[in-house]
This record gives sequence, structure tokens and C-alpha cells, in this order.
Amino acid sequence: MSRRNTWQDIREKVRRRIHRRDWAPGEMIPNEIALAGEFGCSRATMNRALRSLASDGLIDRRRKGGTRVALHPVRRAVFEIPVLRHEIEETGAVYGYRLVLREMAAPLGHAAPGIGAGAECLHLVAVHSGDGQPHAVEDRWIDPALPGLADAPFEGVSANEWLLEHVPYTSGELTISAEPADAGTADLLGLPQGTPLLCLNRVTLDGARIVTSVRLSYRPGHRLTTSL
Amino acid sequence: MSRRNTWQDIREKVRRRIHRRDWAPGEMIPNEIALAGEFGCSRATMNRALRSLASDGLIDRRRKGGTRVALHPVRRAVFEIPVLRHEIEETGAVYGYRLVLREMAAPLGHAAPGIGAGAECLHLVAVHSGDGQPHAVEDRWIDPALPGLADAPFEGVSANEWLLEHVPYTSGELTISAEPADAGTADLLGLPQGTPLLCLNRVTLDGARIVTSVRLSYRPGHRLTTSL
Repeated sequence: MSRRNTWQDIREKVRRRIHRRDWAPGEMIPNEIALAGEFGCSRATMNRALRSLASDGLIDRRRKGGTRVALHPVRRAVFEIPVLRHEIEETGAVYGYRLVLREMAAPLGHAAPGIGAGAECLHLVAVHSGDGQPHAVEDRWIDPALPGLADAPFEGVSANEWLLEHVPYTSGELTISAEPADAGTADLLGLPQGTPLLCLNRVTLDGARIVTSVRLSYRPGHRLTTSL
Repeated sequence: MSRRNTWQDIREKVRRRIHRRDWAPGEMIPNEIALAGEFGCSRATMNRALRSLASDGLIDRRRKGGTRVALHPVRRAVFEIPVLRHEIEETGAVYGYRLVLREMAAPLGHAAPGIGAGAECLHLVAVHSGDGQPHAVEDRWIDPALPGLADAPFEGVSANEWLLEHVPYTSGELTISAEPADAGTADLLGLPQGTPLLCLNRVTLDGARIVTSVRLSYRPGHRLTTSL
């Protein structure tokens, strides 16, 4: 007795058919009912499979115009971004954290415009390391109005983790860029100034208010990888 | 009369509750039936909402152990990666494409190990530009056994687009890195050698066979951005 097809099985069958170009880019594909018959599954299963393929950008579903194979598939790349400590510990290395600067200052550099609404912000610079080797520099600005901030022990626990546990957030923006190491970052990573570094820039919002703005500058050779 | 809650509405309500820390990280949340009653929706709607939050990494669902707020949420960042021509045209610029090298050669540099299985591969280097300004350098290796390759007119249409239309693929890997511009890339982008560049490295597989391996090196200032 064969196992019943799950919607994931059906999705892979339809995906293979598109990849083999049995249906060409831009071509209309049969409707849900016809496809369900052809693949021997329920209409609900076929619907779930097609929704998944549409969300992957492989097919375009129009309410009136039927479903077509996407002409110009926009590839969605999904990256998993763990907390730095976990990222380092997952490699088997011993995690280290060192706060190198804690000051109140007017936001500058990569700080998100508008953070602190004119007031000085808490500025933290820290190094995250694995087995004593610098892994990334965290350069962070935090809204001074954040509750609990004055008592936060950023010596023992990174702002990365403290914020995760203490701060509500509603949305944010993540930007990936390549930047030359500035003098301070180069020194902390033990590199020549100007070395190309992969940077993750994150702005975290609570409603319309910017809670924190951080740049993580990774050691050379760091990569973000995902399956397509 | 109020609009009926969609699963997306319910998801946002649950998300807000987690963000407000009404339920703390690691804490067990009520079961699906109880939540459906509390939020005034069907169990199916609540199930769909919770599945979405689990796939976002915000909650952990265990078959036996119930559902908890994730202790260490792994943030999923989703980037949309369009075809280069579309990426450039979307900014309102006029797209340009120039092939600068077409040769058969033994794979080297960033080429995926194993491509061509020992044979020489087709090596293409091209510049994609917007309003005449270089936007990215495409440095690509293609398996010589690929059907139709000998007749492909890479002068008028980029390999980027030709492959999309002619090649079946089943899987791939995408890597983002920061690299110093090598002499050739620097020259094509009109930059000093060593300039930090954001690079997208993509390997495309048809089954176990590597079809193509490409590095896109973007002009300085290029960023990948996504909402969290």
C-alpha cells in the first residue's frame, strides 16, 4: 500500500514539472481541479501545494486570469540569523564577549537617523569571540528612554541578548552590506584598516519609535549561506 | 458589523502578545482550542496562525510538549533576489549589458569545486549597468555539457537570463560575502583594486550535477534590505 501524497509531495511533483519545462515560463497551467485529478490528490491538497509554489515565486496566481508559470521568478532567499552567542557555540567554539565602550553620546556613524529624537543615546561597542578569536564587532545605539536600561549589566551579558529578553519590538529592518573596516573596528578584529567586512545593520522599532540600531561587522571569511 | 478575523489578523494579535511579553520567552502558551476561544476564531484559523508564527521561529511547537514562546528566536530574514535586469530597471534606469569575456577554460577562482567534472567549462564575464554606470560584474562558469549552450547568444542576452529560460534546475546554494575587488573586477567597475564589494555567489544544481556557478560583484553602496 503506497503512502498517501502530502501537499509537500504534490508541491515537489509540480515543481519538477516546471523545472523540466513541461510547462514553459509564462504558460498557463491547468486549474486546481484538473491538476488534483491528474496528480491523484484532493483539491485542498493541490491548493496548499500551489499556494506554497506561489509564495516561492515560481507561479503567478491571478484571481480571474488563472495560474501561470512565473516569467521572471524572483528568488526568495531565506537566511536564518541566530543570536551571536549561538552562532559561535554551534561551531563548537567557546563563546567570549568583551564590552569595550559604554558611553552616552549623540548618535553618529551608522546609527539610524532619528534614534533618541535628539537626545544622547547609549552607545555600546563590544567584541564577540570564539575560542578567543574575534568573530564580530557589535556597535550599537540604544534609545535612552528604554525602561530598565540604566540597570542593564552589559559587562556580563551582551546587549544582543539583553535586548532580546527585555525589549518588546514590533518591526525592524535588516540591511546587508560590505564595508571597509574603520580604524576602531579594524583594531578590535586585529586587521588592517579598510579590510572588506560583511556587515549586518539592524534597526528595531517599537511602533514608530526606534529602540536600537546596531551594526555587526564580521571577521573576514564570514558568509551567509542558504539553500535555494 | 465587524469584519471577520482572518488567520493573518489572529497571527498579528498573537505576535503582539508575545512582543509585549504577556507570555515570556520559554513560557508555555495555552493550547489551540483555548486560544481559539480567547481570540474568538475557529480552531483551524488559530492553527494556521500558529503554524505561521512557528515558521517565523517565534514559537516552538512540540507534538507532545505543547507550544512555547521561543527562548532564542532565530530570526528568518527573507531577501528577494530578482534578475539583474529587473533590479536595475526597477530603479528607473536604462539597463545595459556587455559581455567582456567568453572562453573555454579549466574552472578556477570562485568556481564551485567539481563543476564540469574535470572538463573545461564555459567561462563568461559580463558587466550589468544602469544608465551607463556599472552595477554588477557577473563572473560565471557553465557546465559544457549543457544542451543548447554552443548556440547561446550571450552577446545580446545575459547568461543570467538565458539560463533562467533554458535550464532546468532542482536546487542551489546562495552565499553572501564581502570581498576585495580583484584587478579585473575593479577595472570593470572603475574602482581601486581591493575595494570592498558585496558578492552573491550562487551554485545551481540539476540533481547532483553542477549546472552553473556564478559570482555577482556589486558596485560599492549596494545593499540587500528586508523587513523583519
